[in-house]
Amino acid sequence: MTVCFRRETLKYMQERSRVTQRRLLEATVECLYEFGWSGATTTLIAERAGVSRGAQLHHYPTRAALVLAAVQHLAERRAEEIRKEVAALTGDRTERLDRVVELLAAAFTGPLFVAALEVWVAARTDAELRDALVPLEARVGREMHRLTVDVLDADESRPGVREAVQATLDLLRGLGVANLLTDDTARRTLLLAAWKRQLATLI
Amino acid sequence: MTVCFRRETLKYMQERSRVTQRRLLEATVECLYEFGWSGATTTLIAERAGVSRGAQLHHYPTRAALVLAAVQHLAERRAEEIRKEVAALTGDRTERLDRVVELLAAAFTGPLFVAALEVWVAARTDAELRDALVPLEARVGREMHRLTVDVLDADESRPGVREAVQATLDLLRGLGVANLLTDDTARRTLLLAAWKRQLATLI
Repeated sequence: MTVCFRRETLKYMQERSRVTQRRLLEATVECLYEFGWSGATTTLIAERAGVSRGAQLHHYPTRAALVLAAVQHLAERRAEEIRKEVAALTGDRTERLDRVVELLAAAFTGPLFVAALEVWVAARTDAELRDALVPLEARVGREMHRLTVDVLDADESRPGVREAVQATLDLLRGLGVANLLTDDTARRTLLLAAWKRQLATLI
Repeated sequence: MTVCFRRETLKYMQERSRVTQRRLLEATVECLYEFGWSGATTTLIAERAGVSRGAQLHHYPTRAALVLAAVQHLAERRAEEIRKEVAALTGDRTERLDRVVELLAAAFTGPLFVAALEVWVAARTDAELRDALVPLEARVGREMHRLTVDVLDADESRPGVREAVQATLDLLRGLGVANLLTDDTARRTLLLAAWKRQLATLI
């Protein structure tokens, strides 16, 4: 059987498909953020997205597939946003470095970080999820490192620069975890003020 | 009704009580580490500890009480161990600082850190657990900071030293999370080698 569509109809269907996917991925991160791993059921996510269970299963057959796609999609979107915001920065090198650290810190305290941490911790004791997550996290980690090198305008061929960039990301991850249960902004701001000065001399 | 015991009997009962408690607390951390928050049920913990459900409920009436007591007990034990190991260190100031950073890093990649992270993440979306955990974590955090200042022999009255100690702990927390799903030892070792040099100039 051959099914024929007019080009316009096909385009419309593809666009609708993309909208459905985006809604599901964003609802997944919202639900992980609000209800945690165990609370973010596929039923709840479909409801939140306003998408039928059938459409959800068509795009993402398993909960793991949905969650991994959501983490990847939003990590890419977040990286794009950071690049755009950095491109719009003005001021001298020091002011720019300060703002870049702040933008990165905001990423590590936002809902996507929290949602990703929920998935990470769940994957630790769920072999199937872990096997799928490990290569994805390696890729996201490399892209985050590349992004940080770019936005900090860091020259990794110089000794110590690579470690300084990595330390910045690990420090921000630690600060993200410290912000999970209480608002740690005041302490983080003081600590990052010192870190910015140090980073300026390191890179 | 008055119940009388010989002094020896009372001592024996108290000692047995302490042993039961210790077993339960250690089994709790083991189960959180092995099975994660949702898998570490009170039934499983009682089984692992070899303690009856009745005795478990007598000492820790709720799962939250058990889990919080476990995190606190083992954090105290870990701090004691670190202090003992640091006291036994030989070598010059640089060698000692290197070993101290390694001892702290080991604490942030060990089973207790992982168990505590499971509880932390669960508490984010469990208001009752969070309310009980927040003051405990504040206390444990302060004690960890104090311990780090002591074992690094750092003078916090000097500018930047307090931030350097905090950054060390936040960095180690970030490295602990990076080690959750895969063995991150090689990267962590390189990064900490650079951090030790930096820390030596900061404190």
